[in-house]
Amino acid sequence: MKKETRLTFASDYMEGAHPLILRRLAETNAEKTAGYGLDEYSESAREKIRAACRTPEAAVFFLAGGTQTNAVMIDAFLRPWQGVIAAQSGHISVHEAGAIEFGSHKVLTLPHRAGKLTAEAIRKCMEAYLQDANHDHTVMPGMVYLSQPTEYGTLYSLKELEAISAVCRDADMRLYVDGARLAYALATTENDVSLPDLARLCDAFYIGGTKLGALCGEALVIPNPALDRDFRYIQKQHGARTAKGRLVGVQFAELLRDGLYAEIAHREDRLAAKLSAGLEALGYALLAPTQTNQVFPILPDADAAAIADRYTGGFWQREDETHSVVRFCISWATPEEAVDGLLEALREVRG
Amino acid sequence: MKKETRLTFASDYMEGAHPLILRRLAETNAEKTAGYGLDEYSESAREKIRAACRTPEAAVFFLAGGTQTNAVMIDAFLRPWQGVIAAQSGHISVHEAGAIEFGSHKVLTLPHRAGKLTAEAIRKCMEAYLQDANHDHTVMPGMVYLSQPTEYGTLYSLKELEAISAVCRDADMRLYVDGARLAYALATTENDVSLPDLARLCDAFYIGGTKLGALCGEALVIPNPALDRDFRYIQKQHGARTAKGRLVGVQFAELLRDGLYAEIAHREDRLAAKLSAGLEALGYALLAPTQTNQVFPILPDADAAAIADRYTGGFWQREDETHSVVRFCISWATPEEAVDGLLEALREVRG
Amino acid sequence: MKKETRLTFASDYMEGAHPLILRRLAETNAEKTAGYGLDEYSESAREKIRAACRTPEAAVFFLAGGTQTNAVMIDAFLRPWQGVIAAQSGHISVHEAGAIEFGSHKVLTLPHRAGKLTAEAIRKCMEAYLQDANHDHTVMPGMVYLSQPTEYGTLYSLKELEAISAVCRDADMRLYVDGARLAYALATTENDVSLPDLARLCDAFYIGGTKLGALCGEALVIPNPALDRDFRYIQKQHGARTAKGRLVGVQFAELLRDGLYAEIAHREDRLAAKLSAGLEALGYALLAPTQTNQVFPILPDADAAAIADRYTGGFWQREDETHSVVRFCISWATPEEAVDGLLEALREVRG
Amino acid sequence: MKKETRLTFASDYMEGAHPLILRRLAETNAEKTAGYGLDEYSESAREKIRAACRTPEAAVFFLAGGTQTNAVMIDAFLRPWQGVIAAQSGHISVHEAGAIEFGSHKVLTLPHRAGKLTAEAIRKCMEAYLQDANHDHTVMPGMVYLSQPTEYGTLYSLKELEAISAVCRDADMRLYVDGARLAYALATTENDVSLPDLARLCDAFYIGGTKLGALCGEALVIPNPALDRDFRYIQKQHGARTAKGRLVGVQFAELLRDGLYAEIAHREDRLAAKLSAGLEALGYALLAPTQTNQVFPILPDADAAAIADRYTGGFWQREDETHSVVRFCISWATPEEAVDGLLEALREVRG
Repeated sequence: MKKETRLTFASDYMEGAHPLILRRLAETNAEKTAGYGLDEYSESAREKIRAACRTPEAAVFFLAGGTQTNAVMIDAFLRPWQGVIAAQSGHISVHEAGAIEFGSHKVLTLPHRAGKLTAEAIRKCMEAYLQDANHDHTVMPGMVYLSQPTEYGTLYSLKELEAISAVCRDADMRLYVDGARLAYALATTENDVSLPDLARLCDAFYIGGTKLGALCGEALVIPNPALDRDFRYIQKQHGARTAKGRLVGVQFAELLRDGLYAEIAHREDRLAAKLSAGLEALGYALLAPTQTNQVFPILPDADAAAIADRYTGGFWQREDETHSVVRFCISWATPEEAVDGLLEALREVRG
Repeated sequence: MKKETRLTFASDYMEGAHPLILRRLAETNAEKTAGYGLDEYSESAREKIRAACRTPEAAVFFLAGGTQTNAVMIDAFLRPWQGVIAAQSGHISVHEAGAIEFGSHKVLTLPHRAGKLTAEAIRKCMEAYLQDANHDHTVMPGMVYLSQPTEYGTLYSLKELEAISAVCRDADMRLYVDGARLAYALATTENDVSLPDLARLCDAFYIGGTKLGALCGEALVIPNPALDRDFRYIQKQHGARTAKGRLVGVQFAELLRDGLYAEIAHREDRLAAKLSAGLEALGYALLAPTQTNQVFPILPDADAAAIADRYTGGFWQREDETHSVVRFCISWATPEEAVDGLLEALREVRG
Repeated sequence: MKKETRLTFASDYMEGAHPLILRRLAETNAEKTAGYGLDEYSESAREKIRAACRTPEAAVFFLAGGTQTNAVMIDAFLRPWQGVIAAQSGHISVHEAGAIEFGSHKVLTLPHRAGKLTAEAIRKCMEAYLQDANHDHTVMPGMVYLSQPTEYGTLYSLKELEAISAVCRDADMRLYVDGARLAYALATTENDVSLPDLARLCDAFYIGGTKLGALCGEALVIPNPALDRDFRYIQKQHGARTAKGRLVGVQFAELLRDGLYAEIAHREDRLAAKLSAGLEALGYALLAPTQTNQVFPILPDADAAAIADRYTGGFWQREDETHSVVRFCISWATPEEAVDGLLEALREVRG
Repeated sequence: MKKETRLTFASDYMEGAHPLILRRLAETNAEKTAGYGLDEYSESAREKIRAACRTPEAAVFFLAGGTQTNAVMIDAFLRPWQGVIAAQSGHISVHEAGAIEFGSHKVLTLPHRAGKLTAEAIRKCMEAYLQDANHDHTVMPGMVYLSQPTEYGTLYSLKELEAISAVCRDADMRLYVDGARLAYALATTENDVSLPDLARLCDAFYIGGTKLGALCGEALVIPNPALDRDFRYIQKQHGARTAKGRLVGVQFAELLRDGLYAEIAHREDRLAAKLSAGLEALGYALLAPTQTNQVFPILPDADAAAIADRYTGGFWQREDETHSVVRFCISWATPEEAVDGLLEALREVRG
């Protein structure tokens, strides 16, 4: 266990908090507040989120991390025998160690394209369930789980999201969007889905903090208060209410105060676009188009090895005998020079 | 939701972090570290804990909060059909909203005295199970849950803990100690149970951070590494692994670096003793003897009302028509003048 | 493992099925029917139950056994974080090996008198929950579980049941009655609670078959069809739908065809009353008044030992150093001579 | 809901019990026996099973149905965060309504051929898990689930099963075989896997009764008693212990007494082979080769419609716009004339 000295792009949660967040925590540190999210900072953050989503009635909850948020949310909306439809690449399908099944729910996986599901595939899945004369022997789809951006950094367009939302409402299924990196979606020019759109089209979604520059914390939004009868109970049963609730509240209040949230994401998206364009210019193919702060080039293993003492990314998947997909993430702390340096190093390798 | 302007003793987690902890978070903020507790700060904190417990082989895990820690720990040691013996006043019995049952375990409650169980009562409970010819129709006790200090602020003596440990080992039950406020036990002169004693007598225990001056975080210790085959898996399944694991790691490394942990607790225990003695001098009876940072006087409702615009505690339970038990907690941020002021205010009321 | 040659009163499920039931199974054996309870015999039994309860709209489900029925029912009505209020002596509290906790529910136990709860105690329990400012840290009572007759063979009167039902409806809690031995309640002259009363006052109850003379099977009734949205799904998730659903359906159709159900129970209640009166005449005290088919005398251990080669009951609990409570159950197969013989044997012992 | 008058081949559990089983239930009906499987009939059946498997030490349990048996077994062997590998067509993958997830386990599905998995695919799945540096974020494969015969009626050869068993032992995974229709496998000449082979190669398997001619009941075998520490506890927690345990015990004792088990299966396999050959002679293709008592022809919808007033099968899946796969099952009660009649009717349709 030694210190990381290389410039690593392995993930976007390797540093602490954005300095403004840390400063705000220090400024408010000595004040006494109520526990469990009943403090004024949490309430202020909730108000800012309601305003940004244009849903003055929305229920907003703060949680410590993404897996926890997904597991509690799915349990809050579904009965134990209902399942949740997700892409085979969805975080809940592959990277949550059974957290959804811990709440008794099957994850009903569908094939994806660059991490995305289609309204048509969801509709057919529900149709197959309903047409099965013995469907009480199978798991009832009760919810659709999407991520925006997806695990591949790609985006649902407004049109795609509207189509999925319509299918869900027709079929009386809940629609839930995992926004661990939502800021990166909101900040990019390619995106046409706003927070009010999410609030209008989804039954719940979360605005991620951990991967954006908070020490920890995610903000879950349930736009329609009629759907929030149960969340706080299941949140406590999951051990997912923080005693010093202000810790997450203060951070979100700061992120949303003067546009810090958009500012961080905008810069990171821009650097990712620069890196992506540079990699393509060097002749590297991408696993998926770069739309947010993650870039997925297919690199020859030799090239990756040649720069490994100075620059690293995160292994994503093996492509063939001599190539791998590597994930490069930009975080709030990644300097532009690091991007330039990485491209320069690869340029030398390509010779 | 307005700011708290009164001097409130309602709990010990109403302020942020101890200033030294916050400073350390700032100092280390820009460094890149691995996620999920694999960073060097978490490892350093683990080493300090192993040293303090004199268990170089112990497994140590960091979690965000107490209910979460209890639920994950109990799930890690027990099979789903096994239950956990606890006092009727135990945190897992009454204040965790079904978190233990969420893992399928029954909490097998026993009567308590000032929050404490006896070795004899535990032995009889296990004996009754074994003597029942149909015991496979009942829940098998697989673990004993204690808290040190208890929910009443009281302490198990070394002798009591040794007796309970012996009963557990005879009966092949695990012994687990909830140390949400463990520092307050360790720092008081009345205590004769050290960290190495806990490590020797228990199968697991946690050292609390949240109620001691951390922003969040608890450190779970499993002294015998042979008993730690499963924790990290169930921790992830519970959504209880923090992406920026350094957040808790840095805090515990700081708490344990130069004795800050003991220093905070020692001061708070001393103030609680001062408050307790002052209340008794004023003629108030106590629900339980004051041994750590919590004081439980039985106050006439009139007295509490008379000072309520300046000083408040936390309602604990109704005693009779005109009296209630109130909990006064001392935190790292409680100034000695607040204790003096509270006593003075009550002295005026008593006239 | 040798054959039982003594006359044992240990339980009421030691023989196979009442001969008329067995005959009916043979008569219908060769017919082809749909599986999973969709057959005409199950439907016929459902119709008979609806008629007897005067609830033409009721949902009726057949299950294989009592623990299974309780666990599925409680899961169907409650959300995972809700608990169920029961007597400390309730079957779900002590004899189901954690089956209720397997569905994540806490059993909230209250003291009992001869197995019975009072409306007042239930009301206070709910009131305490609601008055607790932090009640989202505790388990929400969502249902009340009673048994009629109770585990002590005692009966709720109509007045008592009406009071409990009113408390439940005021507090928006479901009321569920475990009727493992319901026939014995219905058949006794002391009883004033009819099936239509149960259907009017409860949200669900089951009519037991196993302990009445069926090979297996219980009939769960949900009088208000608006409350039955979910049962069949959770029933399958629990593995509690029988492929050859006719097995239970045929048996209940027969039990309810010409009053066999009442006839069996009436005879057994009468024999229990005879046994009870005889025991009291011999000077034995009873743990609880005999109201149905179970008798609970407090016997000197010497007396029990003296007849043990000819007559046995079931050990219930130790009373003191030299006495135990023994349970004598009457089943459909207990001949009247066995009751006479048991009394005669004890008379000789008493000398 | 009207009586079935057509000759239906929809499933093999549409009639009651084989007459010899029913006779034996009647013969033993009046005897008193201990409950919950502790009776002498259950013990006798267990002994017969141990003898047939040549595992004198095996633990044997009786349960009421297949989904229940699978769910309890998987819970008994796995920790909650471990998953079970199964074919995408496996019963636990698609037809148990979330029963496995109810125990918190993910079903890790792999592609199949005619319902079968390969040792190689299982090995690769485990290898991928172990090679993933972050595998504690994914579900640990802890068990492999097969069915013999499969849901398509096909068989694993001894060589295939040995290869799978070797992979499981190398990887410290349990191997479990669902034998809902095991008799049909054992009785066919194509099969080379005996009960002693299953006992040698698997950690658990069950011998199905419901689909073979019992009223209900499955016999679970755990050949190595060291692996049976927990089953009876989790069985009760699932509500899966039958009070009148003799009901299943008597049936299995009879099935195994004089070879009735093999005799029933042998006849049904033969009729299925006759039906299969006849269908192929008429030019119908099969979805999978006929190896046991189920036949899966791909029928033009017009042909099925033409005979639907006299003969029906069970819809399996749609093949194309004008064809469907239909399942024809042979049961203990299917007369040979029904097979002849079905073929004759189709011959007329084919003209």
